[in-house]
Amino acid sequence: MKIGLDILGGDYAPNATILGAIEAQQLLTGDQKLVLFGDEEETKSLIEKAGGNPSDFEYIHAPENISMGEHPTKAITQKPNSSIAKGFELLKNGEIDSFASAGNTGAMLVGSIFSVKTVPGVLRPAITTIVPKLKSGFGLLLDVGANADCKPEMLNQFAILGSLYSQHMFGISSPKVGLLNIGEEEEKGNILTTTTYPLLKNNERINFIGNAEGRDLFSDIADVYVCDGFTGNVVLKLAESFYVVTLKKGLKDEFFDRFNYEQYGGSPVLGVNAPVIIGHGISTPQAIKNMVLQSRDMIQSDFIDKIRSAFN
Amino acid sequence: MKIGLDILGGDYAPNATILGAIEAQQLLTGDQKLVLFGDEEETKSLIEKAGGNPSDFEYIHAPENISMGEHPTKAITQKPNSSIAKGFELLKNGEIDSFASAGNTGAMLVGSIFSVKTVPGVLRPAITTIVPKLKSGFGLLLDVGANADCKPEMLNQFAILGSLYSQHMFGISSPKVGLLNIGEEEEKGNILTTTTYPLLKNNERINFIGNAEGRDLFSDIADVYVCDGFTGNVVLKLAESFYVVTLKKGLKDEFFDRFNYEQYGGSPVLGVNAPVIIGHGISTPQAIKNMVLQSRDMIQSDFIDKIRSAFN
Repeated sequence: MKIGLDILGGDYAPNATILGAIEAQQLLTGDQKLVLFGDEEETKSLIEKAGGNPSDFEYIHAPENISMGEHPTKAITQKPNSSIAKGFELLKNGEIDSFASAGNTGAMLVGSIFSVKTVPGVLRPAITTIVPKLKSGFGLLLDVGANADCKPEMLNQFAILGSLYSQHMFGISSPKVGLLNIGEEEEKGNILTTTTYPLLKNNERINFIGNAEGRDLFSDIADVYVCDGFTGNVVLKLAESFYVVTLKKGLKDEFFDRFNYEQYGGSPVLGVNAPVIIGHGISTPQAIKNMVLQSRDMIQSDFIDKIRSAFN
Repeated sequence: MKIGLDILGGDYAPNATILGAIEAQQLLTGDQKLVLFGDEEETKSLIEKAGGNPSDFEYIHAPENISMGEHPTKAITQKPNSSIAKGFELLKNGEIDSFASAGNTGAMLVGSIFSVKTVPGVLRPAITTIVPKLKSGFGLLLDVGANADCKPEMLNQFAILGSLYSQHMFGISSPKVGLLNIGEEEEKGNILTTTTYPLLKNNERINFIGNAEGRDLFSDIADVYVCDGFTGNVVLKLAESFYVVTLKKGLKDEFFDRFNYEQYGGSPVLGVNAPVIIGHGISTPQAIKNMVLQSRDMIQSDFIDKIRSAFN
């Protein structure tokens, strides 16, 4: 198993990514190999400085970096030696089994779609985020930004993608799916949600529980919340800002702690032909470590095969 | 000045509304009269029981109640003696100068549009909510539910409506307007926001500062945040749920305290020909009191004339 990791991506790269890689490597077994994308010599020297053993890792020399502000499509094509472009090149060729980066989100998305491509039958992949539940455990919210405008059939597919992730990665046998909406009743909502509702209701492959409102996101009423990428992205960033407020104000609480994305890694791009994980820009070593372990779990559970079978 | 108040609306009515009316009345001056809509005899008796003086108020006998679950349009037409239907009847006839209720939101919205009607030139009224800023003071978010699907020109008008409210009710001379969006750059967003952006940018009547993301909602970057009613409603309910979490967990903080809607009353319906305020379903006496004072301030500042002039 070869787990690809971008050493150059993220606000605190390469130091945070190097430390995260070293921490992750200690938790991997013999056949699980971390493949690091970045400047090979610099990476090796930083690993050594940080007390790691450079020979524990494999390297792909990719000295160029796609920065946060760059245009995704342009950057991917104009920087073939960038860590993200190289990562997707190897992922496409099957030389690595997954690719994770805390770098440019758009480049990660474009890279996924143009290299490993969308799973046949899937209209559009979705970026999926993990949301903590007030009582315990985690729910999923998708899409959080891959598709600013959505069609009902896309949301119906997000429900399937999210359910599969919840089943195979969280072990929830029949994940409850809620449609993020502005009212409890079936007829409530905008054009998108009112036309999506009957699709979800008649979808026998999911356990649809009806509409969920903004206030329900951290409740137990659903395990998977589906919405268009515009709404999901606004919601995600608002929720993150609350977490930041509690941190700034020194309000300690177990629930707020579980908002800490560092604990679970990154946001998987669901619906493409390989495990791809996008990390938070401000990923710490812990977040990077967990993104690697999340990649490993997705490979180990043959998660992509589950998606392919579902859309076959 | 006659301030209309629905005694039957809200989860804790009529006790909370009666107590709120008594508290508010003590803060009104001689020419400011509270007109109470509900069962006249019951209202008078409850005021007496609560230690108030029934002769301090005027009454409109409206014994029927439109409950929270009722279909707004049906209820308004089928219950002409309901407090909400009566309220709008008198508001339309100029017998009261404003109307406020913590009852059925849809009925309040439908009532506004069909009785006092939308201000000429305004495409659609917007429900406007107050959001606390982290540092101090309040921002506005609109629309939060009157229009689940919006056109760019509607958002452009919301920007003007919100700016006027911020100016005349909060005393902010040149309110900063942000477009709630999923990226900072002009080209980011969904179809609605990317087509709205140039309208806001070229609108010389507002102080447009560009896009605002979910994480900016409680910041100082804008005084008025505009969005479609779907996004706004999801955001509002999510923000409220965070406030509820902090309450449940006993986390005291001045910022969270300012999420308490009780302090500022209710959500005005902006763009109709009279001050109309929708209270939170769970309005307490304090919330009702502040909704009355908010009504008075809107009347006193000739706020509706400001809107009419702006759209003339």
